[in-house]
Amino acid sequence: MSADRESLCRVVAELGAQGWCQGTGGNFSLTVSQDPLRLLITRSGVDKRRLSPADLMLVGPDAAPVPEETGRPSAETALHCRIVAATGAASVLHVHSVANTLLSEHFASQGGFTLRGYEMLKGLRGVTTHEAPVFVPILANSQDIPRLAGEVEDLLARNPDLRGFLLAGHGLYTWGTALEEAKRHVEIFEFLFECAARRTVFRPFGG
Amino acid sequence: MSADRESLCRVVAELGAQGWCQGTGGNFSLTVSQDPLRLLITRSGVDKRRLSPADLMLVGPDAAPVPEETGRPSAETALHCRIVAATGAASVLHVHSVANTLLSEHFASQGGFTLRGYEMLKGLRGVTTHEAPVFVPILANSQDIPRLAGEVEDLLARNPDLRGFLLAGHGLYTWGTALEEAKRHVEIFEFLFECAARRTVFRPFGG
Amino acid sequence: MSADRESLCRVVAELGAQGWCQGTGGNFSLTVSQDPLRLLITRSGVDKRRLSPADLMLVGPDAAPVPEETGRPSAETALHCRIVAATGAASVLHVHSVANTLLSEHFASQGGFTLRGYEMLKGLRGVTTHEAPVFVPILANSQDIPRLAGEVEDLLARNPDLRGFLLAGHGLYTWGTALEEAKRHVEIFEFLFECAARRTVFRPFGG
Amino acid sequence: MSADRESLCRVVAELGAQGWCQGTGGNFSLTVSQDPLRLLITRSGVDKRRLSPADLMLVGPDAAPVPEETGRPSAETALHCRIVAATGAASVLHVHSVANTLLSEHFASQGGFTLRGYEMLKGLRGVTTHEAPVFVPILANSQDIPRLAGEVEDLLARNPDLRGFLLAGHGLYTWGTALEEAKRHVEIFEFLFECAARRTVFRPFGG
Repeated sequence: MSADRESLCRVVAELGAQGWCQGTGGNFSLTVSQDPLRLLITRSGVDKRRLSPADLMLVGPDAAPVPEETGRPSAETALHCRIVAATGAASVLHVHSVANTLLSEHFASQGGFTLRGYEMLKGLRGVTTHEAPVFVPILANSQDIPRLAGEVEDLLARNPDLRGFLLAGHGLYTWGTALEEAKRHVEIFEFLFECAARRTVFRPFGG
Repeated sequence: MSADRESLCRVVAELGAQGWCQGTGGNFSLTVSQDPLRLLITRSGVDKRRLSPADLMLVGPDAAPVPEETGRPSAETALHCRIVAATGAASVLHVHSVANTLLSEHFASQGGFTLRGYEMLKGLRGVTTHEAPVFVPILANSQDIPRLAGEVEDLLARNPDLRGFLLAGHGLYTWGTALEEAKRHVEIFEFLFECAARRTVFRPFGG
Repeated sequence: MSADRESLCRVVAELGAQGWCQGTGGNFSLTVSQDPLRLLITRSGVDKRRLSPADLMLVGPDAAPVPEETGRPSAETALHCRIVAATGAASVLHVHSVANTLLSEHFASQGGFTLRGYEMLKGLRGVTTHEAPVFVPILANSQDIPRLAGEVEDLLARNPDLRGFLLAGHGLYTWGTALEEAKRHVEIFEFLFECAARRTVFRPFGG
Repeated sequence: MSADRESLCRVVAELGAQGWCQGTGGNFSLTVSQDPLRLLITRSGVDKRRLSPADLMLVGPDAAPVPEETGRPSAETALHCRIVAATGAASVLHVHSVANTLLSEHFASQGGFTLRGYEMLKGLRGVTTHEAPVFVPILANSQDIPRLAGEVEDLLARNPDLRGFLLAGHGLYTWGTALEEAKRHVEIFEFLFECAARRTVFRPFGG
């Protein structure tokens, strides 16, 4: 598991270097076992640019630390558990970027947006042509994590081929069948979000 | 105190690497003692990307170097002292970014602006939901530092829960109960400023 | 050939660090021999920021691996082969940037766009004044690589002085008489694309 | 002189890391002697991100290499010589950024633009308040370097307090009484250019 911890730390550091974990934002997990569910996940409030193996902890399917752990996992651990249970993901990554924050706020009222026509879409598992439309759903943000976890579960039940979703004004959740695929999905989504954001006329910020 | 100096240098280097201390801009302090007040603060005109412990000096409550120091502290040292006296901050950080410069200029006439609806707001101490509005006050810029220090003192007296403020066309001051919290506040504010700036229709620059 | 592999890895790492190979995007080749044609090219799906010599493989003129190789080269290897056959290039580099993606989508219907008036144009081989107009052709994107390779061949036959072209919504192909020249061409085109993109009123993204 | 070479290489590497020397763009000099004039200057076409002392060469007042040198200095060496002769600068730095390229093109017809109201202006030698207007002149670009050098000489004769100027569609020239001051001037100008560019409604690029 030491190699797992180091792999996750390395990936998080790469994402942090791209500005996607500002202010200790974001949380990240690696599935150590599917049954029983065991996730290595970032502790609450740690600096993602300087993550060390000790900043990770082990949780069970109820999002609670396993008995031998101390400390508090990320507040959104329950979302990771639900995503892994629904998709079998090997890793779930959640990042905050300016583009994903703005798009998720702007398009929240229409429930999501569709990306199409970009070659980079092929970086998402199962997409084989730039012509395939990829819908990115947006859920309302909430501080009620159990309720949000339920909505995520419903979303995934209705959309088994989903590769990621947004929380409004909050950020991206994406995952993969391997850690490297999950990381690739972050980069692909963020690249496409930046393309979309530069083409979006946002509602003016009035202060 | 050697560890303090190294910690502050490391944090400033991280902020500098994000482009927030261009042209020797910005100044940074760590509270070594509250009573009597003793701050470690960056010397005037040093390169923040390559800060070494010797680029820091010790000042007292009057913003003057303690007797055993030589050289000149940052011009804005009095602002740091006033903020620490009013808030008990462990660290005060002042950065220049393009987004904070533009927003502080644009909204100066209305005295500030309000951020709300963003999950990242929760990175500010005491904010527990994205729904909480966070007002960012803007003070007029001035080269009269004693007068500005008085205005800062008044602002903090009226707003004990403030986490940061802007000087118009100048930059952000933020602080924290620990160095890491102050740094987190910089990253949170700057992330949210970039979100706001990308949604702002600035008055055209006419040359 | 070990030095060749290391040189190409170093150049790709530099391009990756600039954000032009997100999500394993992009592919890169170095011409080891012109007759018979032998290209060192990136394997399919490798992380371009962490490229190692083992992530490169040798292909022949038909874009197929030479007999002693195992594994699969980049899907777009046939484009590299055609470009080298037509231009004698020592290296072909293909990158994805937000600016090249947006411009190639926006101007696809007019078949390309013209850059002029910028000193940086002189960084393209053969351009000696900022006043020279440089046309950047855009080909429709396609998942039919053999057909696309034929179109590239036609394009190069009609435009022997071409230094690069775009695939719509996909990215830039450029090359050079040496690896360093090809890399310089990437940087010059991307700089100019960013200039053009910041001046372009893109069709609004409606979601 | 070995220390001079290393200092200049270090400064150029820092500027290059900020994206201001793409595609081997930019040129940089350090004044080794004022009388007779001797400048260490970057050779033509070298990669500024990986500059080594051997990439610098010594030139005299006529912009020609001193007898013991071989190779070709930057094409714009004569501009460096004229600036040093007129201002006594210890270093002249010339960079290309997207912001300086766009602003210098946009405002060329009005001969320049004025920056004011920004605290960062105080990073320019002699500026003591954000209220001081700083005019940035723009000269038409030209491939006739001797003629351009004459225009630079005239500009400096008319404006002895100038800290930098732009060539239209080309880039920034700035200098300082020490290498560190020249570097600070680059960062200050580029920060302010980015502020101005984000507020500028550029003429649309039509392709």
